Amino acid sequence: MIWIVPISVIVALFFAGYLTWDVLRRDTGTAEAQEIGGFIYDGAIAFIKRQYRTIAFLSIFVAVILAAVVGAFGTEDPPGDLEPVEGFGLAWRTGVAFFVGALSSAIAGIIGLITAVKTNVRTASAASRSLGEAVMVSLRGGAISGILVVALSLLGVYSLFMLFGGVDHPEAAPFLIVGYGFGASFVALFAQLGGGIYTKAADVGADLVGKVEAGIPEDDPRNAAVVADLVGDNVGDCSGRGADLFESTAAESIGAMILGVALWSATGEVAWIFFPLVIRGIGLLASIVGLLSIRPGAVKDPQRALDIGFWVTTALSIIGMAVAVPIMLGSWWFFVAGLIGIFTAVAFVYITQYYTSGTWRPVQEIAEASRTGPATNIIAGLAMGFENTAIPIITIALALGGSFWAGAQGVEDLGIEMHETLWAGVFGTAVATMGMLMSAAYILAMDTFGPIADNAGGIAEFSNAGEETRQITDGLDAVGNTTKALTKGYAVASAALAAFLLFSAYLEKAKLSQVNLAKVEVFIGAMLGAMLVFLFSSLAIRAVGRASSAIIEEVRRQFREHPGIMDYTEKPDYQRAVDIAASSALRNMIAPGVLAVAMPIVVGIILRAEAMAGFLMVGTITGVIMGLVMNNSGGAWDNAKKMVELGEIRDTDGSVIEKGSAIHDATVVGDTVGDPFKDTAGPSLHVLVKLLSTITLVLAPIFI
Amino acid sequence: MIWIVPISVIVALFFAGYLTWDVLRRDTGTAEAQEIGGFIYDGAIAFIKRQYRTIAFLSIFVAVILAAVVGAFGTEDPPGDLEPVEGFGLAWRTGVAFFVGALSSAIAGIIGLITAVKTNVRTASAASRSLGEAVMVSLRGGAISGILVVALSLLGVYSLFMLFGGVDHPEAAPFLIVGYGFGASFVALFAQLGGGIYTKAADVGADLVGKVEAGIPEDDPRNAAVVADLVGDNVGDCSGRGADLFESTAAESIGAMILGVALWSATGEVAWIFFPLVIRGIGLLASIVGLLSIRPGAVKDPQRALDIGFWVTTALSIIGMAVAVPIMLGSWWFFVAGLIGIFTAVAFVYITQYYTSGTWRPVQEIAEASRTGPATNIIAGLAMGFENTAIPIITIALALGGSFWAGAQGVEDLGIEMHETLWAGVFGTAVATMGMLMSAAYILAMDTFGPIADNAGGIAEFSNAGEETRQITDGLDAVGNTTKALTKGYAVASAALAAFLLFSAYLEKAKLSQVNLAKVEVFIGAMLGAMLVFLFSSLAIRAVGRASSAIIEEVRRQFREHPGIMDYTEKPDYQRAVDIAASSALRNMIAPGVLAVAMPIVVGIILRAEAMAGFLMVGTITGVIMGLVMNNSGGAWDNAKKMVELGEIRDTDGSVIEKGSAIHDATVVGDTVGDPFKDTAGPSLHVLVKLLSTITLVLAPIFI
Repeated sequence: MIWIVPISVIVALFFAGYLTWDVLRRDTGTAEAQEIGGFIYDGAIAFIKRQYRTIAFLSIFVAVILAAVVGAFGTEDPPGDLEPVEGFGLAWRTGVAFFVGALSSAIAGIIGLITAVKTNVRTASAASRSLGEAVMVSLRGGAISGILVVALSLLGVYSLFMLFGGVDHPEAAPFLIVGYGFGASFVALFAQLGGGIYTKAADVGADLVGKVEAGIPEDDPRNAAVVADLVGDNVGDCSGRGADLFESTAAESIGAMILGVALWSATGEVAWIFFPLVIRGIGLLASIVGLLSIRPGAVKDPQRALDIGFWVTTALSIIGMAVAVPIMLGSWWFFVAGLIGIFTAVAFVYITQYYTSGTWRPVQEIAEASRTGPATNIIAGLAMGFENTAIPIITIALALGGSFWAGAQGVEDLGIEMHETLWAGVFGTAVATMGMLMSAAYILAMDTFGPIADNAGGIAEFSNAGEETRQITDGLDAVGNTTKALTKGYAVASAALAAFLLFSAYLEKAKLSQVNLAKVEVFIGAMLGAMLVFLFSSLAIRAVGRASSAIIEEVRRQFREHPGIMDYTEKPDYQRAVDIAASSALRNMIAPGVLAVAMPIVVGIILRAEAMAGFLMVGTITGVIMGLVMNNSGGAWDNAKKMVELGEIRDTDGSVIEKGSAIHDATVVGDTVGDPFKDTAGPSLHVLVKLLSTITLVLAPIFI
Repeated sequence: MIWIVPISVIVALFFAGYLTWDVLRRDTGTAEAQEIGGFIYDGAIAFIKRQYRTIAFLSIFVAVILAAVVGAFGTEDPPGDLEPVEGFGLAWRTGVAFFVGALSSAIAGIIGLITAVKTNVRTASAASRSLGEAVMVSLRGGAISGILVVALSLLGVYSLFMLFGGVDHPEAAPFLIVGYGFGASFVALFAQLGGGIYTKAADVGADLVGKVEAGIPEDDPRNAAVVADLVGDNVGDCSGRGADLFESTAAESIGAMILGVALWSATGEVAWIFFPLVIRGIGLLASIVGLLSIRPGAVKDPQRALDIGFWVTTALSIIGMAVAVPIMLGSWWFFVAGLIGIFTAVAFVYITQYYTSGTWRPVQEIAEASRTGPATNIIAGLAMGFENTAIPIITIALALGGSFWAGAQGVEDLGIEMHETLWAGVFGTAVATMGMLMSAAYILAMDTFGPIADNAGGIAEFSNAGEETRQITDGLDAVGNTTKALTKGYAVASAALAAFLLFSAYLEKAKLSQVNLAKVEVFIGAMLGAMLVFLFSSLAIRAVGRASSAIIEEVRRQFREHPGIMDYTEKPDYQRAVDIAASSALRNMIAPGVLAVAMPIVVGIILRAEAMAGFLMVGTITGVIMGLVMNNSGGAWDNAKKMVELGEIRDTDGSVIEKGSAIHDATVVGDTVGDPFKDTAGPSLHVLVKLLSTITLVLAPIFI
């Protein structure tokens, strides 16, 4: 069944090629729309060039250091009859794997961004014709990125596996490609941080000077930061999340293969090692069919269309799991574990909706609390953010416990004798994680759909499109907000579930049989891991503040020095605002990024492998929880504001609360507080959690 | 040296008696002051009666259930030649220990409250004469409570220890009195939650209707909630913190004695078991001398006077440690451990000042961020709150690691062969915790001084005292704000340090040799422990919102139905507002309180002893970190507001920012958000952390 891997990759590439051709041939709309579209495209390309230049520099530096350190101090002694790999042999493999991972992650981010900035004008143009066509175009644009990212991740892991002797020594190759995961998450961290800081700094900067100081509407062409703001939507959500899910799928595949090796040791069957790749291939195919199932004619309610596609993907994933498990693993218990994972994905999609959509209690409570001002709005939002950790954590606990139990049953069922360092059920949690991530390409397509729709709305506003067109883009934008929130919920849940399998892979690699929290150094490691999450969040949030003040100054300067801007006789210098946003975002991503990479290394070297495991595990728990707090409180504040703007909140006398009232102002404060939470710190925390796992996997040889 | 225990208790009781006599004989001021003082006294007594009626009901219920469950399912098999204790023998001892602990904790809280509400009028009166006398009176009032609370804790542990056969079987008695710690923390939790909800609900309610809606100043006699607000300062800070530190010292002594038993097993020396009580006695005497060293004539700068007293206490603690360690333990390495603890206390006093006082960067940054509105004020405060976890956690990590290392050296030095379940250095961390808590009575005296000074200011305002008097009370109030913040820093640090020794005591009792986080059920326990902290915080914060809306409605009703209140022709019904505040606070403390008690029990019963240890440890880490975030961001927001009010922030044109300006309004929003953080959820988290430790200690027999 391993042939399904290259087949699915080839199918995915052809499908993505077809979609690209289909999107690009479409009409790009009016001259005004094309002009602003061009600005966004140029700004995005300019940012990404600078960003990836910085990241490339950092990556090459880290690749060399990593190769040198691992080569000098580490030994990789995989199970099986292969000689231990050390010295130059380990150094070049680690360096190459890291570099290929970094490069692929960068390509994934760039693909997401370019498709988004090519699709946005075409969506705006399609919206002038029909809702169905607008949904079609924006979703196909999202699909290109979703499919390519997942295909690329699979291709990368598969190629490196083969390159590092996967045919002759399938039991050794997974240990040698862990650098791929680290490279991918290293780039994802900086892509997400830089993009997240950029998008919110531009957003806050544009709003504070434009809406508050100059009194002009959002996305008004007179605001010098408006293009930077529209660019920001793309670099934050597309490029950042693309790199994020790219490395989720890559790291999870590698981790699961390492666990597969443990089962290979016990059974001699290589199917355990190939299984993660096969499931990823099936998931990719299921997502493609899911995306195809959304028919243009049938679209009336875009959210419903997306839901149907998701359910098709889920159903096909279940069928694929039901075929692959009995053939490759031989026990239906692993199917149960996979099913648990698939349904965890579904559960998170709905839990996130509950906490962040205006139809339910949490957001309504925040909107109600705004009646007594911004302070009570903030308190209600934070209380909600803290509360919304409970159900997701219980869900993850049940999924972990259930899939572990199923895995243990499966191992017993097959009569496999496990060796001492690995608990029997761990492979069950790995299968659950694979099940959960089967829909990754579909979810990522929905996510990229979000900023495309958002941008299409901005372009329509900017180019003075008709009322009907704007209604269509507004509707798409609302759906896009929901899908963006869902993706974050999915990303954080997959990080949590994947974490346990990555811990186990680390313990395998570090040859640890326990992580004893009663030892003082392990407990200290655990405290420091939890602390890292808070310090990192603080640095990420501050970075937004610093970068936004640079933009605020620039917009103020342009209004002051070019008074003609306000009466349309002069054009603002969008390019300069874009440049300043880019350079300040990139400058400010360095501190949190370096902290995230350096702290685990320092702790690992001083406190050694077991304390490092404590650091990793408790850091992961805290990171997942704080990620939930930040993403969902941010989303809820945003939608509480939207509730007021849509006229859903009424005064005691029954009159609708207007935009600009004190209550609306209170919700704007909440939304602004939530911005760096949900778009900078929160999403960066998912990546941090996975970076911790991959960094420890790679450096395990020097922590022992 | 064990005689130092009864001696120190007797000295403390006499000293407290003298102080009480001295405070009570002082002048109670003008008729107006006496009137409002009477209102506060009546309100506080009314609240505390209702609160402790509720708590008594809950405690008796829990005592009976606990005795029954432990009697039916548990067996306590302490080291040494004593028969295992089970059935009725274990049941009555556990029930009695719990009940005595609960009762003592309640008495500690009541003492703190009554001395505070008796001292406040006398301080206001003294302030009309001189600063020196006002400091003297308020500090003596605080000292009564600080000394009695610590003496009571020592007396309780010592008496129960003797009652449960400490003379014949000193190695068995510590295991039988663990219920005392649980009882104490059970009451402390509800005292802190109820008091914390009351104080902030009354504060928010009084401010929102009074200052914002009716436009009258703070503490204005026309505001029906003003008495409730003044009562609140006492029930939150005095009664809550008294119960909190009471159970800190009690639980820490019992935990350290259990670890002492392990060393007794190895050496046959009972000194290891008695040492914690002796150190507590010496610390009590050192605190008394420290308090005596503050001379009335020498007082010019109150903060400096308090600092000198603290340094005297610290110096005497060091001397006491240097005398007790060589005599009782025989190795100077334990003195090193004790010294580390004493200096950790000092470090936290200064770290907290850095983060919460207007003289340093953190608070200044928040004040600066307020220039661009409430949203940036909130973001800056939260970023600061997250950041301020780093240095404290690193300090705790160094203290734990250092004292553990010193302890291990000491054990090696003495040539003691340790048994397998206990790590050699743990007694070092226990000695460090003892060292840290030596100054508990002094710190608590400073803490109670805070609300006394605050109340004296309110009484002066309410009774229209002269300008000079108000200046004195304002100065005292500012110092009081600092001492309140310090105590919270001290409480959270002692909770963190004590936690490690309490974990070790739990492992001793549960006969666990490891807490393996790589096991799926332990990892799940750890996730749930972290989640509890967030859910509990959410419930505590919401409780404030619910209780305050009840008060807001009542104040609005009184203004509406009695229009004469505004022009002073009618008096508002303070009593009714006090009643409503009390009943709504007590109703709303139930949900978070029950969650905190029930969740560890449920998790322990389902996932068993080792997973429970994961729950406990990771819950503790998260609780300590979130406690730091909430206490210090709350304190910083408060002081950022004060900076603006004191005219320390200037506009770009150099003019001072006024009260009532947009920037001041932004800082008021931050202060309001910080209120439930620093006075409700934050302090309740310390108690939660210790409750988790004591509950698991008591229930260890049924989790095995």
